[in-house]
Amino acid sequence: MVDERAQASGDDGLDGLETPCLILDADRLKANVDGMRRRLDKLGVALRPHLKTAKSLPVARMAMSRPDGPATVSTLREAEYFAEGGVRDMIYAVGIAPQKLDRVGAIRRRCTADLAIVLDSRAQAEAVALWSRRAGDALPVLIEVDADGHRSGVDPRDAEQLRAIGDALAEGAELRGVLLHAGDSYGLSDPVALRAAAEAERSAAVAAASILRDAGLPCPTVSIGSTPTARYAAHLEGITEVRAGVFMIGDLFQAGVGSCAVEEIALTVLTTVIGHQHQKGWIITDAGWMALSRDRGTARQAIDQGYGIVCDRAGRPLEDLIVRDANQEHGILALRAGASAALPDLPIGTRLRILPNHACATGAQHDRYHVVAEGRHKGEIWPRINGW
Amino acid sequence: MVDERAQASGDDGLDGLETPCLILDADRLKANVDGMRRRLDKLGVALRPHLKTAKSLPVARMAMSRPDGPATVSTLREAEYFAEGGVRDMIYAVGIAPQKLDRVGAIRRRCTADLAIVLDSRAQAEAVALWSRRAGDALPVLIEVDADGHRSGVDPRDAEQLRAIGDALAEGAELRGVLLHAGDSYGLSDPVALRAAAEAERSAAVAAASILRDAGLPCPTVSIGSTPTARYAAHLEGITEVRAGVFMIGDLFQAGVGSCAVEEIALTVLTTVIGHQHQKGWIITDAGWMALSRDRGTARQAIDQGYGIVCDRAGRPLEDLIVRDANQEHGILALRAGASAALPDLPIGTRLRILPNHACATGAQHDRYHVVAEGRHKGEIWPRINGW
Repeated sequence: MVDERAQASGDDGLDGLETPCLILDADRLKANVDGMRRRLDKLGVALRPHLKTAKSLPVARMAMSRPDGPATVSTLREAEYFAEGGVRDMIYAVGIAPQKLDRVGAIRRRCTADLAIVLDSRAQAEAVALWSRRAGDALPVLIEVDADGHRSGVDPRDAEQLRAIGDALAEGAELRGVLLHAGDSYGLSDPVALRAAAEAERSAAVAAASILRDAGLPCPTVSIGSTPTARYAAHLEGITEVRAGVFMIGDLFQAGVGSCAVEEIALTVLTTVIGHQHQKGWIITDAGWMALSRDRGTARQAIDQGYGIVCDRAGRPLEDLIVRDANQEHGILALRAGASAALPDLPIGTRLRILPNHACATGAQHDRYHVVAEGRHKGEIWPRINGW
Repeated sequence: MVDERAQASGDDGLDGLETPCLILDADRLKANVDGMRRRLDKLGVALRPHLKTAKSLPVARMAMSRPDGPATVSTLREAEYFAEGGVRDMIYAVGIAPQKLDRVGAIRRRCTADLAIVLDSRAQAEAVALWSRRAGDALPVLIEVDADGHRSGVDPRDAEQLRAIGDALAEGAELRGVLLHAGDSYGLSDPVALRAAAEAERSAAVAAASILRDAGLPCPTVSIGSTPTARYAAHLEGITEVRAGVFMIGDLFQAGVGSCAVEEIALTVLTTVIGHQHQKGWIITDAGWMALSRDRGTARQAIDQGYGIVCDRAGRPLEDLIVRDANQEHGILALRAGASAALPDLPIGTRLRILPNHACATGAQHDRYHVVAEGRHKGEIWPRINGW
């Protein structure tokens, strides 16, 4: 009786919303945050949530240990926004360009925020030390270490490079520690491999910290973080904090990795049926890639979820129905290849919700969350920011 | 001497910009608009530019024949924004949901805008006619016709369905014509096939219009539109207007189709080098997929451009250098597979510009254009909107 379920509006509060729009399930969000917090408490490390997924102050307040942090950000725009919202302890976790130092300094001064930066080369360290001396502001710096060849960072065995960066920073800046991100864990799905990736991230972090300490350099912070490794780490000895972010919200990609269950995903896109191509078995909606994002992360996983799993307006997946393709403002729903279910009858005007491939990418297509709690939207809107 | 070129700042006005950000080359934009206008003038049809790519009033004013239109939009947010900016003649070219009719009516009233809508089913036509009677506002409607099985629309040979929709609209609404979009042309690259796709779009439009007229129904507007078919149509007899949009700006995907040349693309993302992984031949920048979008349209074309072609700050492509991969706020530059060029030396802080896969998707990640004219940015910023 899919049709009735999908059409039943009840008093869920969704009828007044313009589609497409983002729906955030506050109950699931809270459960995800509580789960990660319990897990990290048990492992004896602090949570420094990455706010790049949610980009929203109300979500940040739910995820942080205290109203002033700690937190991680991916842009200086986020740093400004959260600093203005009272967050004081932040790491801007993208390698610094020298041109951005004045803006970092301005955020630190204006908001008395302890905003730390990240780098992985001696050239950057020298520029930061010079800026610090000139500004009279010893910028706190974490050296980015490469956990798995994914992206940036110093090789954790390259003692010479680590010491050279540390020595350069000592000329005016503040060396605060090391930072790693095991991004290659996103490509895994086997628990054994995920535990190994987590241990590789941990041991690389500890090795780099030891090199600095053995050279007489400070390394109070040993920061790691990715949602999959945070979920699968067996122990985190030697680590002081974890910077996971997408875990709060979850998405189909993380479900494919094994970092969350589909029914834990807190984010959906509300959409309306606008047409049918009956002969092809297509249902057309007003949520295209502009609303869902172009992210097709699950295309490389064991189960390709298209542009997302289609749910009824209560958020319950409709059997075997996915967003098969997307144009800018059109979603094309169809059954999965080999599906046993029949195509549901979803008349023009039916409201549906789409579980996204990637919460960070889908969220970024929108400027607000329509909050649902206990299955109802009572008009509460949480802002979110974009841009740099 | 790539390095010197890339580092030379001269007086291009780009040093003061925060990266990543969008750069719009106004000279290329104007040339693209002029070229399409000349072409359509020769074919004897009007241009109703689609504003979904640019989403910017200054760009719209350059692309439209008159300050009040005509124009095409893909969201009601665009309709509101452009109506408030003086555009009066618009088609909202996405199949209408009945829930959106009040908002359509409000835009028409508040801005005295001639905003037309689109549908492809009798159920929608009946809802629109009922709304029109109740509101005392005969909504102008175009029937969407399916040119090529790409997405939405009535089969152009289905006379019964076309007449049924026309008859239903006659009960209060205004049937204004037919509308087609040959979206499958995006998958082509052979000029012969593109000319055939353009002719198929044209002949389907004319066939559907004839069915309506033969039934005594009005069909003043016969509207087609896609950038590839607009570029390749041999003649457009029976067509009244073309709704192309991305042609104004161009992108690597359209270059792959053959709808524009790489050196005609008016949009780039300005970025800064933030790191190197020398052993891997990677250069890391601050333009990740958040700035470039997740669109990888060229992955399915003959030449895969990664997340974009890397140019120096003047917009000249650096030989064989592409954005090989992207994380949220990190771009990973590397030479193409099999490249003969050497990796250029691009120190930390070097400014580069990235030509995007898809102008519509990349634009949507930003809220403004930094305008360059005659090779210089003099502080001019053009706004752009997003959302629904």
